Amino acid sequence: MPPAQHGRPEINQDLIARVLEGDFRSISRLISVVENSPEAGRPYLRELFQHTGKSLKIGITGSPGSGKSTLVDQLARYYREEDRKVGIIAVDPTSPYSGGAILGDRIRMQSRSVDRGTFIRSMATRGHLGGLARATGDVLTVLDAAGFDLIIVETVGVGQDEVDIVRAADVTMVILVPGMGDDVQAMKAGIMEIGDVFVINKADRPGADRVEVELKALISMSARADGWKPPIVRTVASEGRGLAECAAAIENYLSLVRASQFQRNRSIRIQRERMLELARAMVLESLLADPATHELMDRLAREITDRVVDPYSAAEELLSRLSEQRAPEPARDTH
Amino acid sequence: MPPAQHGRPEINQDLIARVLEGDFRSISRLISVVENSPEAGRPYLRELFQHTGKSLKIGITGSPGSGKSTLVDQLARYYREEDRKVGIIAVDPTSPYSGGAILGDRIRMQSRSVDRGTFIRSMATRGHLGGLARATGDVLTVLDAAGFDLIIVETVGVGQDEVDIVRAADVTMVILVPGMGDDVQAMKAGIMEIGDVFVINKADRPGADRVEVELKALISMSARADGWKPPIVRTVASEGRGLAECAAAIENYLSLVRASQFQRNRSIRIQRERMLELARAMVLESLLADPATHELMDRLAREITDRVVDPYSAAEELLSRLSEQRAPEPARDTH
Repeated sequence: MPPAQHGRPEINQDLIARVLEGDFRSISRLISVVENSPEAGRPYLRELFQHTGKSLKIGITGSPGSGKSTLVDQLARYYREEDRKVGIIAVDPTSPYSGGAILGDRIRMQSRSVDRGTFIRSMATRGHLGGLARATGDVLTVLDAAGFDLIIVETVGVGQDEVDIVRAADVTMVILVPGMGDDVQAMKAGIMEIGDVFVINKADRPGADRVEVELKALISMSARADGWKPPIVRTVASEGRGLAECAAAIENYLSLVRASQFQRNRSIRIQRERMLELARAMVLESLLADPATHELMDRLAREITDRVVDPYSAAEELLSRLSEQRAPEPARDTH
Repeated sequence: MPPAQHGRPEINQDLIARVLEGDFRSISRLISVVENSPEAGRPYLRELFQHTGKSLKIGITGSPGSGKSTLVDQLARYYREEDRKVGIIAVDPTSPYSGGAILGDRIRMQSRSVDRGTFIRSMATRGHLGGLARATGDVLTVLDAAGFDLIIVETVGVGQDEVDIVRAADVTMVILVPGMGDDVQAMKAGIMEIGDVFVINKADRPGADRVEVELKALISMSARADGWKPPIVRTVASEGRGLAECAAAIENYLSLVRASQFQRNRSIRIQRERMLELARAMVLESLLADPATHELMDRLAREITDRVVDPYSAAEELLSRLSEQRAPEPARDTH
C-alpha cells in the first residue's frame, strides 16, 4: 500500500514534545527513527514541520583537507558565545564504504572540539532510500523544529547529492585553501552558483594572495540575479582567526536577501527540489514495501542478465506494478 | 503519458549500424542523444541492449590525488598494446559546479595521454535525471554494443552515486597512495565490499610498506562470499610500472568468478539495482513531461514555503498525479 493511503500511524506525542523543547537525547532518538524508517519517521516529520522555518541554515562545503570541520566547529563556538543554539549536521559522503570513512573524517568527528551545548550529528550515505539530500532534509526539519537558532550543514563538495545539500541552505559558504592544488581557474564560473560567501582558510599559508586574486577575478565576471557580490573572507580556523568576519559576511548576505523577494524565491526553489526528492523516495518505498515486487525484481534481473528482456522494458514492468498498487483506491487523502 | 504507453519512436537505423561497427564519431553522437534526452535515447538503448554482454567492465576508484587518471590511461595503453579495443568513461563528480571541475580534473582530461584508438568520454553529474549511475549505465550499454573489449569506468570514490557506478563493473579496483592521509585503518571492513583488487599507486613513495601491511591485515579479516582474497598490487603509474601485475590480478579474479556462479549472481544484483535506478528516472520523466505537473509543483512549493502544507503531503499529492497519468490506459505493453 502506498504511503498516500495510510492512515496516520500512532506517534509518540511525548517524544514530539521533548524534541520541541530541544532535549538533545530526544532529538537524537527521533533522528534515528527518521533515518531507520521513513515510514515510521514521516508522521513525526509532518507534525514537526509546522514548527519549522525559524532556524538559519548555513551550508558549508570544501574539499578534504580544507579544514572544513575545524572551521565549522570554531564557527559553532563563535555563535554559541553569542548565546545562540547551534546544531551541526556533518554529511559524510565517504561512508558508502559501510561503517568507514575513507579519509578518516569519522575519526576526526569523534574528537570534535565543539562544546557540549552544540548538537552534532553525522550523516552517512548508505541506506538512505531516496538519497542523502532527502535524508538530510528530514534531519534539518527535526533540528529546525527543536528550536536551533543556527544549523550548520557541512559536506565535502563532491557528488551531486552533497552539492544539493548545501544549496538547500539559506546561505552557502565555499572553503578554499592556498596551495592545495585547488586551481581556482579550474572552478570556472559554475561555482558562483552555490557560493554566497567564499572563505580562504589556512590563510597564513603561502599562496593565499594568489587564490584571492583569482577568486576576485571570477566573482567580478559573474552576475547573480540577486545582485550580490560574494565576499572573500580569510580565516585561520585552527587559531580561531577570521570567525567574526565570516559571521559578518553571512549576516550581510542575509540582510540583502531578507529585504527582497530573493529569499522567498530561494525557499520555493528548495522546496520544489525537496518535493521531487521525497516523491522519488516514496515511489521506491511503495514498490519495495510489497514482497511480490521483490520476486518480480529478482525474476526481471535474471531475465535481463540472460538478455531475455532489456532493462528499460523491465523498469516499465516494475512501474506498472506501482500503478496497480495505487490504482484500486482513489488517491489523495491529504490536504 | 508515461513511457510505457509510448509507441516506439522512429530511430536512425544508420546510426545504430555505425555504432555497432564501432565508429567513434557515431558513438559520441549517440551518447549525446542518450545524455540529453532519455526519451529520445531509450529506443536506441533498447535496440543496442541485445548486442551487449561482451565487454569486460573494469571499475576504478581512488581519491583525488591518487593518480587514478594516470593509472587508467596507462592501463588503457597496456591493453591497447594487446590489440584490445578500450573505452574509458571518466565520471567527474565535481561538475555539479556546472562546466567546472573543482579539482582541475577536467583540465587534466583535455591532455590525457591515451592514444587515438582509445575512446574516452567524460560524464558530468549535472542534468542527469535519475542520477549519474543510471546515465553511466546507459553509456556502458552503448560502448558494450559498440564492441569494446574493455571498458574502464573511473570515479573519485566519494558519493553514493560514484560507488554504485564502480560496483556495477565486472571487477573493481580501489587505488590508494602512501602518505596521503588515507588512513587505511579508517576504511574499516566496509571497503572490502567493493575492492576486488587493491592498488598502491605511487608505490615509490615512503609509506608504501605501511599501507600494504595495514591493507593486508584488513583483507585477512574479511571473508567474502566468493572466497576471493583481494590481491594488493604496487604501481608507479606515471612511469608505467606495475601495469602487467594489475592486468594479471584482474584476470585472476575473473578466472575465479567465471568458473563459478558468482559472476552470474553479481550480474543479477547489478541488473536489479539498475532496474530500480531506471524506474526512479522514469517516474520523474513521466511527472516532468506534463506541463501541468510543473504548475502543480510551483503551487505546492509556494504552499510549503508558507507552511500551508507539509512537504510530505505535497510529495504525495504529486505522486497521486502520476497514478492519474498512468491509470487511464491499462499499462504493460512490454514483453
